[in-house]
Amino acid sequence: MGEGEEQVKVLSQWPSPFAIRVLIGLEEKGVRYEDQEENFASKTELLLQMNPVHKKVPVLIHNGKPVCESLIILQYIDEVWPGSNSFMPSNPYDRALAKFWADFLDTKFLGNAILGILKTTGEAQEEGKRYMLEYLGLLEGVLKELSAGGSKPYFGGKYFGFLDIAFICHTCWFHTMETLGKWKIPWESEFPRLQKWVKKCMERESVNKILPDPRKVLEHAIEVRKGYVSSTD
Amino acid sequence: MGEGEEQVKVLSQWPSPFAIRVLIGLEEKGVRYEDQEENFASKTELLLQMNPVHKKVPVLIHNGKPVCESLIILQYIDEVWPGSNSFMPSNPYDRALAKFWADFLDTKFLGNAILGILKTTGEAQEEGKRYMLEYLGLLEGVLKELSAGGSKPYFGGKYFGFLDIAFICHTCWFHTMETLGKWKIPWESEFPRLQKWVKKCMERESVNKILPDPRKVLEHAIEVRKGYVSSTD
Repeated sequence: MGEGEEQVKVLSQWPSPFAIRVLIGLEEKGVRYEDQEENFASKTELLLQMNPVHKKVPVLIHNGKPVCESLIILQYIDEVWPGSNSFMPSNPYDRALAKFWADFLDTKFLGNAILGILKTTGEAQEEGKRYMLEYLGLLEGVLKELSAGGSKPYFGGKYFGFLDIAFICHTCWFHTMETLGKWKIPWESEFPRLQKWVKKCMERESVNKILPDPRKVLEHAIEVRKGYVSSTD
Repeated sequence: MGEGEEQVKVLSQWPSPFAIRVLIGLEEKGVRYEDQEENFASKTELLLQMNPVHKKVPVLIHNGKPVCESLIILQYIDEVWPGSNSFMPSNPYDRALAKFWADFLDTKFLGNAILGILKTTGEAQEEGKRYMLEYLGLLEGVLKELSAGGSKPYFGGKYFGFLDIAFICHTCWFHTMETLGKWKIPWESEFPRLQKWVKKCMERESVNKILPDPRKVLEHAIEVRKGYVSSTD
């Protein structure tokens, strides 16, 4: 390692939306990093040492020092490598709004909608699907507002920003949501802005490179689901 | 209202640690605000309109626009009224660390320790007490590190900062934790730095003015507890 060269390592698991965020963030900034895939069955010594409180991926290890929690890591990346493309909106109110909706994704959207569909069957799963529709409706409205009625492509307006990265990581799980829930999300009729936004994001090198194949995510999800649901239903 | 004068209103509930944070933040910055106490029994139209997603306090309404989620509000306050006393640490790593521990307070510390003691009895409550001791031990270590071994008074080092505000709001609940759990937290023997830190914080005008009387918090908590625990045990 040359003098002044930075060491950047990410402890990740490929289907984790939270780990995906961090990798997309680094790709966007053009930071060279090493991606260490963590085993699902047993945690490495390095993970336990670097995130002793939560013992979870992702962890960004920058010159030997750990940063944990994906949204905190994204802000850290933006501050350490500001470059020409800032993730965070330039004014305090828009920053607060982006953080609010990113937090919403990590609590309600993940907890009630994604896990609601992934881990349950029957009426509980139907409830998860209703949450998914409700929340996508909210996010369609947020996108309309932040993209200035569609005249700009992203939640970050002209720029692919914090909330774009926070949300795009979940989109590789939609195929899984549809397959497990035995339904189709009505993108075209109900969420046309989000549909267009996903396509636009997929054109970015960073997103295209890092987002896993939705079919691989489904295979993984079917395994995960076995821990919660006894039959294949 | 004179031209250029700012309108700042907070929707709060007096025993809410999250609302307390926002009020202390505004006091620290010397911002004039109106504090609107929300009713526990029924939510006001204004609250439902300003925080339609979560329908919860605190909400900071700044010139008519709402900002929600206490930690996001604190960062917003710091950015809008930077003044001479910045809440956030000056370098990215320390900022990430302060955010990490503030998040820890809102998830593990609140969920497992405080609510673990407040809402349960018997073995479940004992578990809450064990979490409390474990987490206070972690925070004692964090304070040691961030206060440079005790040579500085706060989690923010020389400055009463983001993590100080995020944590001090919980301390008015410790009397409740001890009374409901029928035990004493071993401050002197196990957490001497935290004990000293609380005293130091209480000397601040902002904290002293805003933190409610622990005995009042206890009375409130006993009422809340009735919703979870049938007997007085």
